[in-house]
Amino acid sequence: MEAGAARVEATDLGRLVAFTDGVFAIAITLLVLNLEVPDVSDSRLGEELWRLGPQLLAYFLSFGVVGRFWLVHHRVFSTVGSFDPTVLRLNLLYLALVVLIPFTTEVLGEYGDTSAAVMVYAAVMALVAFVNWLMIRHVLRAGHVRAEEREATARFAGWGGLQAPGIFLLSVPIALVHPYAAEIMWILLLLVVRRQRR
Amino acid sequence: MEAGAARVEATDLGRLVAFTDGVFAIAITLLVLNLEVPDVSDSRLGEELWRLGPQLLAYFLSFGVVGRFWLVHHRVFSTVGSFDPTVLRLNLLYLALVVLIPFTTEVLGEYGDTSAAVMVYAAVMALVAFVNWLMIRHVLRAGHVRAEEREATARFAGWGGLQAPGIFLLSVPIALVHPYAAEIMWILLLLVVRRQRR
Amino acid sequence: MEAGAARVEATDLGRLVAFTDGVFAIAITLLVLNLEVPDVSDSRLGEELWRLGPQLLAYFLSFGVVGRFWLVHHRVFSTVGSFDPTVLRLNLLYLALVVLIPFTTEVLGEYGDTSAAVMVYAAVMALVAFVNWLMIRHVLRAGHVRAEEREATARFAGWGGLQAPGIFLLSVPIALVHPYAAEIMWILLLLVVRRQRR
Amino acid sequence: MEAGAARVEATDLGRLVAFTDGVFAIAITLLVLNLEVPDVSDSRLGEELWRLGPQLLAYFLSFGVVGRFWLVHHRVFSTVGSFDPTVLRLNLLYLALVVLIPFTTEVLGEYGDTSAAVMVYAAVMALVAFVNWLMIRHVLRAGHVRAEEREATARFAGWGGLQAPGIFLLSVPIALVHPYAAEIMWILLLLVVRRQRR
Repeated sequence: MEAGAARVEATDLGRLVAFTDGVFAIAITLLVLNLEVPDVSDSRLGEELWRLGPQLLAYFLSFGVVGRFWLVHHRVFSTVGSFDPTVLRLNLLYLALVVLIPFTTEVLGEYGDTSAAVMVYAAVMALVAFVNWLMIRHVLRAGHVRAEEREATARFAGWGGLQAPGIFLLSVPIALVHPYAAEIMWILLLLVVRRQRR
Repeated sequence: MEAGAARVEATDLGRLVAFTDGVFAIAITLLVLNLEVPDVSDSRLGEELWRLGPQLLAYFLSFGVVGRFWLVHHRVFSTVGSFDPTVLRLNLLYLALVVLIPFTTEVLGEYGDTSAAVMVYAAVMALVAFVNWLMIRHVLRAGHVRAEEREATARFAGWGGLQAPGIFLLSVPIALVHPYAAEIMWILLLLVVRRQRR
Repeated sequence: MEAGAARVEATDLGRLVAFTDGVFAIAITLLVLNLEVPDVSDSRLGEELWRLGPQLLAYFLSFGVVGRFWLVHHRVFSTVGSFDPTVLRLNLLYLALVVLIPFTTEVLGEYGDTSAAVMVYAAVMALVAFVNWLMIRHVLRAGHVRAEEREATARFAGWGGLQAPGIFLLSVPIALVHPYAAEIMWILLLLVVRRQRR
Repeated sequence: MEAGAARVEATDLGRLVAFTDGVFAIAITLLVLNLEVPDVSDSRLGEELWRLGPQLLAYFLSFGVVGRFWLVHHRVFSTVGSFDPTVLRLNLLYLALVVLIPFTTEVLGEYGDTSAAVMVYAAVMALVAFVNWLMIRHVLRAGHVRAEEREATARFAGWGGLQAPGIFLLSVPIALVHPYAAEIMWILLLLVVRRQRR
């Protein structure tokens, strides 16, 4: 079993991107499986659906985060003109971590006020963001990014790119003491990232 | 984490559309998970399969509605030549709501004669249809639709385009009083929309 | 909500085919969910895995049949140069029936010696094959097939094309009396179809 | 129902590859379903998540193996210029076996120290690797590989290509005596394959 060769064609890159998109599309859709239909009497259905609030919040949070990861991947790989076996391997590791998110989302939805749930969620997010950062760094250093786009892509690979993984990592020990504080940090992260773009 | 930039290439749009198609294809296929294989003795299997009638109806209803949403997306985006970060964000929100449909379908299939189930189903459909309308309005106003196609696409973004979300929204309070009346409204909606096209 | 227009571009057809492929890929992969991991003590695992035999047979049967439907769709649509709203609607109905197959497969795997299970499985297959035949007939009559390919595609739309749906339909009443006889008919169908090609 | 014809176009090959990619993307993502959210009191969640260790290991192992199979398919089919009905059939059989991996992974994750689980896992992997080898051999012999790429692809189809299925096959009887010994063999396989490439 052998992966990539030195010579790489554009169609190969297209197939890598298409495969990645497929995995993202499925992982993001599987998030819905974390919403379980209650098994109750008709009269109590409304009440039980209300109690799905935390699961629904976890669903939208993860949908937003996974969607954002996809957008970054989309943005970075649109500037990439070639790749090597290391890109393939990093991308596979990246996807293996992304695919864990429907699981950690379900844990968060069901045990959102528990330290262990918040820590596991944050740890996986930190790992995804970190491998993402490593992969972008690698495609830049290995010269896979087209010259005219290097500057735009370099933004994601500098110290600023460690902000997201850093905040998720920092929220792991914080969740040990106070789960909600960690969850508030994530929301602040989303707001800060938005503002920076402008 | 950064989304789109001002400059947008055709391949980027292609990848957005492909990702959207992937999510739609998965969401529409997950509808089948709402049909649960009965766990009974052999002799009672036939009877139990008959009792899946409401689930099967909910399945075909949702398959039709999701399929129709996909067709509209397909039709509108075939006239779009560029996009911006707002399109990406609206499209992501739109998909997050579409992906909820397998869940609301399962609720409807199992509790179809309960107000809460019908209201939740109708509310999500109204939201999907409304965000759809907002997104089409935005691509038109921001000038992303190719000049020669503006007229065809504008049809979806006028007051007429609010008909579907409006009827779904109206059916929410109606379902509170009489669930079946709301369900009949949806079927009338499908018939009216069909007639209008001719 | 509006479907297709008279004027249809090649990219639209491409997107329809890609969406169909996506649904097929997911439906065929969901077949694996019909294999449930036994929940037993370690010492009884081997024995319990053996008892999954019928589920595994149902899995391979459905994988083969769905794969074959995909091949026919693939073959026919590679000769199609345009389409109309009726094609979209028939294709959607076709997909709604194909997506039921993971459900009927699970029913067959768990209740393979029960008339009801075999009848439901056969009825859905007959419907899929019949809608498939209707759709091919329509694209031919509406002139969507490229002139030089009409003959090759016409083969699927003649009376011979009713053989598969006919045999599945015939097996429904037969299953009422003897489930295994119906199952043997399906295998004969696969053999006959193979021979005819040569 | 008829499969391919003698004449085959490039777009057909593209659709076959895209369908295969779709099935791979879904199968690899379904691996996450083998991680079940524990149903315990909040205070015991952390402990129960730790106990998911074996499932997580099985997840990463299978993600790596399926990813590697995808890479080989990707590499080989990028050198293929045409195909025939036998390729279609072998590819379908190959996919039917790949799609079983989420099931065998779940069995391995839950019963990793049981001979039966390890044997079933190894047997399916051996079959996947063997059908893969047969398919590559066929495309080479039938002249579907572009002349200038024959040498690169032939590497996968020689006796060396039987190394992976052979080791998986050999690990089946070994697992009967000692499950962990078989699991160690797989890891050695991954290391050896890596070294050979250099």
